[in-house]
Amino acid sequence: MQRSTDMNKFLSSEQDWLPSLSVDCVIFGFHENELKVLLLTFRHTDLLALPGGLVHRQEDVDDAAKRILAERTGLADIYLEQFHTFGQLGRGSDQFGRKIAKANGIDLPPDHWFTRRFVSVGYYALVDFSRVIPSPDVFSESIDWYDVRELPPLVLDHSLIVQKALDTLRLMLDHRLIGFNLLPEMFTMGELQRLYETILGKKLLRTNFQRKMLSLEILERLDKKWTGGAHKAPYLYRFDTKKGEEYLNNGDLVRKE
Amino acid sequence: MQRSTDMNKFLSSEQDWLPSLSVDCVIFGFHENELKVLLLTFRHTDLLALPGGLVHRQEDVDDAAKRILAERTGLADIYLEQFHTFGQLGRGSDQFGRKIAKANGIDLPPDHWFTRRFVSVGYYALVDFSRVIPSPDVFSESIDWYDVRELPPLVLDHSLIVQKALDTLRLMLDHRLIGFNLLPEMFTMGELQRLYETILGKKLLRTNFQRKMLSLEILERLDKKWTGGAHKAPYLYRFDTKKGEEYLNNGDLVRKE
Repeated sequence: MQRSTDMNKFLSSEQDWLPSLSVDCVIFGFHENELKVLLLTFRHTDLLALPGGLVHRQEDVDDAAKRILAERTGLADIYLEQFHTFGQLGRGSDQFGRKIAKANGIDLPPDHWFTRRFVSVGYYALVDFSRVIPSPDVFSESIDWYDVRELPPLVLDHSLIVQKALDTLRLMLDHRLIGFNLLPEMFTMGELQRLYETILGKKLLRTNFQRKMLSLEILERLDKKWTGGAHKAPYLYRFDTKKGEEYLNNGDLVRKE
Repeated sequence: MQRSTDMNKFLSSEQDWLPSLSVDCVIFGFHENELKVLLLTFRHTDLLALPGGLVHRQEDVDDAAKRILAERTGLADIYLEQFHTFGQLGRGSDQFGRKIAKANGIDLPPDHWFTRRFVSVGYYALVDFSRVIPSPDVFSESIDWYDVRELPPLVLDHSLIVQKALDTLRLMLDHRLIGFNLLPEMFTMGELQRLYETILGKKLLRTNFQRKMLSLEILERLDKKWTGGAHKAPYLYRFDTKKGEEYLNNGDLVRKE
């Protein structure tokens, strides 16, 4: 009952939102060597979608993304980047709003604002999997993690949005050193390599990977080692934020010589 | 007179356009070792701005950018990429539409659609400088090339938009090999190096640059050389599109080892 009231309230809130514009968030988490993405299921449907929302008339688009992210994950201080805006005519948003409302027993009148065309600004977020408390929105009944390698079909162009986010994540892995946002504070070289392998979708040579990573001079090697276990204990590393920034400010062509 | 009619016609065309959304184009050209950008001056003002426009209700956002670009440059087949969407509340668009109309003797009523907030999708284009025929739009009286290193103040957040486009261009120079779009079909290694130096804003070592470029195996060395001149004639090169694609499909980490 509360749900239905909330839904009706939202559907009468046209004046609160900037017309034509929405935000979709691709929220990545890394867990047990799988790159995962957060998806919600719309109430009374089996339709899966990215967490998203609209932009208040007096709100930065970036702030709208932060707000939506905080509402869905419970996290405020997250690595979040805009990566692409999806403005294809054939995104299908016009059919979609009507469909979702209908599934919940609400018939929208012709040309209702929620049935019109939306252009969506895509953001991706990198979160420490263990800290997230997934929380569904007014239209959805559940929200869960899915392995990006085995994504089910998604509504609208949301599969394309995930793919484009993944392409950007791969590109930025080297250029912005953003992968560390997906790891806990301390990690082994093996864990770092598995993160890279998972995101890039391929195996890397251990010696090459280690040499490359150490040559960047952005990792702090810690004295601590894992306790227990029969194998030789590997070193723990921590990402050195200050050195990372210096590295990124150096520019590409010079760095690679 | 025709101008004024066109302007009034545009200002009554709210129903033609997707609300809240605009497109701005950063059009880069390379000429005499300068990276230039195309800017227009609004009629009866000294206000400089990026070429831009609105999106038809039934038009892909990408297609809107192509249309605007073709209108302003006379070119249809151009390297064009969306790079960022500018959605800050303080972009100032609301004051701006009124100001431009006012300078042309038109007082817009309160809350006129053209005075409302716009979120702008930024595209950058790389064009062969010599092929462009700059052509002003209905609101502007001239359009010209400006050196990016000495840009005058621009309206709204357009300076930020240029800076962000430049950052993206620098990042993509290596990752997408897009620099070749700014050169004529055949070029010397020296010309290629000066393009990179101009975009990156710094000097590069000649031997390192040449070794790096040749190691990518994306250049076809031609038999022809420059004729005339007392110095040793340099080789001409051509970008090998097919090999370039193979290179780009190889992925980063593997490539750099």
